[in-house]
Amino acid sequence: MERKLINELKSGERVKIQGWLHKIRSLSKVSFLVIRDRTGMIQCVLENDKFEMQGIKLESILEIWGTVVEGKNSIRNIELQVEKVNVINLVEEELPITINSNKIESNLETQLNNRVLSLRNENNNYIFKVQAMLSQGFAEFLINEGFTQIYTPKLVAEGAEGGTALFKVNYFEKQAYLAQSPQFYKQMMVASGYERVFEIGHVYRAEEHNTSRHINEYVSMDLELGFIEDEQELINLETKMLQYILSKIESNFSNKFNMLGIQIPEIQEEIPQITLSEAIEILKIKYSRNDLTTDLDPSAEKQICEHAKKEFDSEFIFITDYPRSKRPMYTMPKGEFGTRSFDLLFRGVEITTGGQRIHEYSKLMENIKYKGLNPEDFNFYLDAFKYGMPPHGGLAIGLERLTAQLLGINNIREVTLFPRDRTRLKP
Amino acid sequence: MERKLINELKSGERVKIQGWLHKIRSLSKVSFLVIRDRTGMIQCVLENDKFEMQGIKLESILEIWGTVVEGKNSIRNIELQVEKVNVINLVEEELPITINSNKIESNLETQLNNRVLSLRNENNNYIFKVQAMLSQGFAEFLINEGFTQIYTPKLVAEGAEGGTALFKVNYFEKQAYLAQSPQFYKQMMVASGYERVFEIGHVYRAEEHNTSRHINEYVSMDLELGFIEDEQELINLETKMLQYILSKIESNFSNKFNMLGIQIPEIQEEIPQITLSEAIEILKIKYSRNDLTTDLDPSAEKQICEHAKKEFDSEFIFITDYPRSKRPMYTMPKGEFGTRSFDLLFRGVEITTGGQRIHEYSKLMENIKYKGLNPEDFNFYLDAFKYGMPPHGGLAIGLERLTAQLLGINNIREVTLFPRDRTRLKP
Repeated sequence: MERKLINELKSGERVKIQGWLHKIRSLSKVSFLVIRDRTGMIQCVLENDKFEMQGIKLESILEIWGTVVEGKNSIRNIELQVEKVNVINLVEEELPITINSNKIESNLETQLNNRVLSLRNENNNYIFKVQAMLSQGFAEFLINEGFTQIYTPKLVAEGAEGGTALFKVNYFEKQAYLAQSPQFYKQMMVASGYERVFEIGHVYRAEEHNTSRHINEYVSMDLELGFIEDEQELINLETKMLQYILSKIESNFSNKFNMLGIQIPEIQEEIPQITLSEAIEILKIKYSRNDLTTDLDPSAEKQICEHAKKEFDSEFIFITDYPRSKRPMYTMPKGEFGTRSFDLLFRGVEITTGGQRIHEYSKLMENIKYKGLNPEDFNFYLDAFKYGMPPHGGLAIGLERLTAQLLGINNIREVTLFPRDRTRLKP
Repeated sequence: MERKLINELKSGERVKIQGWLHKIRSLSKVSFLVIRDRTGMIQCVLENDKFEMQGIKLESILEIWGTVVEGKNSIRNIELQVEKVNVINLVEEELPITINSNKIESNLETQLNNRVLSLRNENNNYIFKVQAMLSQGFAEFLINEGFTQIYTPKLVAEGAEGGTALFKVNYFEKQAYLAQSPQFYKQMMVASGYERVFEIGHVYRAEEHNTSRHINEYVSMDLELGFIEDEQELINLETKMLQYILSKIESNFSNKFNMLGIQIPEIQEEIPQITLSEAIEILKIKYSRNDLTTDLDPSAEKQICEHAKKEFDSEFIFITDYPRSKRPMYTMPKGEFGTRSFDLLFRGVEITTGGQRIHEYSKLMENIKYKGLNPEDFNFYLDAFKYGMPPHGGLAIGLERLTAQLLGINNIREVTLFPRDRTRLKP
């Protein structure tokens, strides 16, 4: 008999199910087992003389034959009347953490140390199904817009952002680094004739600080597109993309989100945008923040989002026109001190950085020198600008940050399968 | 006026196009320009008194207004009568390689050194559009089969295959390595309740040999699924998956493939399979190969594929039942010396390795010792087997190898955007 998935069971059927033993409650004559597979849970009613459950520990893998009948219980309005039980893989040791409650009691460190177990809890498990759908939505939307998915090297000879916070790799006789971003390569791919490219892949930041919103290896969803007029085209593209992704999430997870009290944000036709100077002015007037000059700090990001919610009824806000001093050398200047750049803030946190890039070789050389950098360090990247680089721009979204903000989760480690931070390399 | 893409142009329209100057031929009164964008090429007819093309080098970025008219030329049956030309980005230096011929004359090293330029040639450019579709096909098929896409760490504390050929990374006070495969993590994700997972991501092999079929960083398409009966389920899944992927390729690239004389392989309902012992016997009898005992070498792989083509009319063949001595410690044994494992050969090269895994803790411990390995080295991985691991198995496909074999390309560097080998870290 073929295995049936639990969420496909219908009253009246004789079936075989397979899964984990989630709960058990034994009375004198019958036992109530809850079995869990990837699709859900079901209560199974077992007469004790049919199979000896004594000694079968929770989370053992069982195979159960029986008939689906109507029946009231806390899980669903059907249950399984058990004919036969087979133990596929027995748990012999005590579980290090309890996972069959609504919320796991153990702290995050313990949960991460026991990741295989803690992820089985349904309030952890769904996180990575949502995350998978976020990245698939990103890919689908862009493929429909004529983008080509690319895979660029993470082993690089030099850093894209100027050489700090790089992990060193022993590469045969040479020194290599782990890429901080696919920035150079995605720009080069625009110039290679693909015009529109995206990449979903790991990036590495050797930053020493351990905060709840930083990890050292994360998934960056990057896009870059050629023949744009200005940065507004990127802002429009991201707006449409987020609408697409969130509607996909809505149609797949609205029940789960309702149960957990998670709101899916509405995105207006146009996400509000303000310049950084306007943001700083608002923060000065409304929040007495007199300390900000050329950038927002984490609490300013929260305050601006509060402002956007009140003033524009939006959970998203674009901050534009960051100063040249604060943006990388490849950023297109706007006037003498500004740039054609933006951040997107969502529920108090920056989830995107983007902007138009310089496409003329001479201007790029100029800006590299303005930034006090050495053009020699960027030889192969610079070459791409000599032989026909179209006007272009792009952006990057941190997949884990987007997941965290959407689900209202505070620590980025919770939305990373196996986080890597200052002290954690295992599991 | 909005930009129109070249493959969307229709006779009679007034349009603006943008792209690279692919070719130019000037007569006394008119010039014939060929403009290229990401969708194709078109010939443009320019009266010389309208715009001075003298000094405008090939590959400059132009913007051209004009009217599409019918007209015979070597590219298409329409052409553009130019009204106005605007130079968006001028090429000022001589191009280091010539790319506007059918095939680039420069050798592979030169092409890789000038990757941005060499990829513009249409016989290079399409390779990575095909590659993108191969990986999208992999993802789409698996999502439809209930798989969850995962992103697992590439910075690891230990290797999955036993510690050789690992790149070392300086990770703060610790030593880390670059992952050779997501093997441990994908198995753990099966146990985490996802049951069916896949990952498309980079893996790293610090192998010192420089051959045409090895690179040190490549994209591995990995899948793992729980609650299987045996390795035949994996073989069936891969067969259906390849059918899906190839039909997607066929509907998108059949014209291009026809032009290049590339055959899309037919996949029968069932791909033929033989055991390794049978393969070795066949090689002995038919190819006088008396040197093979427990594995196939590259030329044996070619010979077996030749045999499969002749005997079964198939370009694919599964080789099953590899000996325990030749497979990693996690491979499910079959009898005393065999394993429930397989390779898939395609047009002379192995493109997949897969098999059922051991799911019982005690058997895994036994096999680790049988292999002469130290269980201490695999602590966190082993823990996953204590607390409810379902029977499972999986496989991995090398994306670059699949691309190369499909397109009939010999050197794997040609199907890697920016290959990393023994000596190459740039661009």
